[in-house]
Amino acid sequence: MTYCVGLCLDQGLVMASDSRTNAGVDYISSFSKLHVLQPAPDRLFILLAAGSLATTQDVLHRIRRDLERPPQPDGHAGSPPVTLASVNYLFEAAAYIGQLSLASQNDYGPALRQSGVSPEATFILGGQIGGRPHGLFLVYPQGNFIEATAETPYLQIGESKFGKPTLDRFVAPALSLDDGARLCLISLDATARSNLTVAPPFELAIYPRDALSLSQKLSLEADGPELEALSQAWGDGLQQAFRALPRFAWELPPAGPA
Amino acid sequence: MTYCVGLCLDQGLVMASDSRTNAGVDYISSFSKLHVLQPAPDRLFILLAAGSLATTQDVLHRIRRDLERPPQPDGHAGSPPVTLASVNYLFEAAAYIGQLSLASQNDYGPALRQSGVSPEATFILGGQIGGRPHGLFLVYPQGNFIEATAETPYLQIGESKFGKPTLDRFVAPALSLDDGARLCLISLDATARSNLTVAPPFELAIYPRDALSLSQKLSLEADGPELEALSQAWGDGLQQAFRALPRFAWELPPAGPA
Repeated sequence: MTYCVGLCLDQGLVMASDSRTNAGVDYISSFSKLHVLQPAPDRLFILLAAGSLATTQDVLHRIRRDLERPPQPDGHAGSPPVTLASVNYLFEAAAYIGQLSLASQNDYGPALRQSGVSPEATFILGGQIGGRPHGLFLVYPQGNFIEATAETPYLQIGESKFGKPTLDRFVAPALSLDDGARLCLISLDATARSNLTVAPPFELAIYPRDALSLSQKLSLEADGPELEALSQAWGDGLQQAFRALPRFAWELPPAGPA
Repeated sequence: MTYCVGLCLDQGLVMASDSRTNAGVDYISSFSKLHVLQPAPDRLFILLAAGSLATTQDVLHRIRRDLERPPQPDGHAGSPPVTLASVNYLFEAAAYIGQLSLASQNDYGPALRQSGVSPEATFILGGQIGGRPHGLFLVYPQGNFIEATAETPYLQIGESKFGKPTLDRFVAPALSLDDGARLCLISLDATARSNLTVAPPFELAIYPRDALSLSQKLSLEADGPELEALSQAWGDGLQQAFRALPRFAWELPPAGPA
């Protein structure tokens, strides 16, 4: 399993993922699920991936091959192939990734499904192109996609339920990028506590709008000082909040005579 | 959907449920899912139900009919039929409820499945019989069951993921019954915020061990003062915890000269 989350905030993007991959409970390993692509100086993309590791890696291979190979004559005279360097809008990049994902699923899906394995993959794509606004998309296994909006400025893929209540409570477009990063990490922490197939290192990327480069890219180990301090402080804060909850009427001392 | 949770604590049982029932998003209604049964003075049962409302109501009808009708000759000469009044152990009560659930599913399942509807139901049974210890069981749709233990003193049915991180963080057998009740309510609150098909009124029952009666049975409305105060206090506490999270290294002012 996997848990990835992206926030589209006024000040930019925060994107985070765990890095556990498992093929059964006895084959657990660690793979990065957060990929940064800058195919031209005027654009930056951050891609989070969940689902079949073979499919998500294949999509990345195809993205990079498309960027490297010279334009091919393809029947449509004069129309160069789409790449992440050629798209003009973020939604075109989302559509392109959806097409690559479908192509990979079509190549390997029939054999995989005979073994009862799904080839499906889901992506979160964040980024910015030229002078256009930054944005965040979720690309479904079927190749279609949705975009985060001011009403719902976050997107999740993978094991999303455990970490959703925390997001719902704090997320807002006006959140600072650093608060957004803390929010992603406690959402990941809650998920990792409840689901063994989600685990550190947690990867985190912060993209300030219009910067066309990341301000931060972290990989936080389970026993590293940052994650331990954050998890400890959050646990202490929750304990304090729990102890401060109001008493029930029957717990209160009876009112004395006036 | 439904969310029910039970805690088996040293001091007794806390059991809670939402009360939203939906057959599609356009047919939403409110039904109690927390049932208290005292078929004899030496025993008390609390039953939480999730799944097909027809099945869970049918199981309750059958439980009550079995308790009312006189013993029937049943081929096994001399063996009276099992009822909640006749069982000697909690696990026998769990097995009996599993059998009633299977019988109802067998009666209506074939027709339901033709309409693409599942007849399945899941139960949490808490209670105490005579001088035996109190206990908490989860009865699966297949009729088998598991019991809560000191290592995992809680059981959940229905939409369990959103409310699990809170439980995992605070639950312990040594928790007081009142703290257990607060914990169940904030777990329900987190779930209701994230899933529209889980909603107040929240029902709550507190059973102090060896009492053979409930000390509290509440139905808390969404806009009632208790639930509002609890939800508000929890939200404030979480905000405070979030604001107190440690800063990242890059947010700290640079160290001045020594």
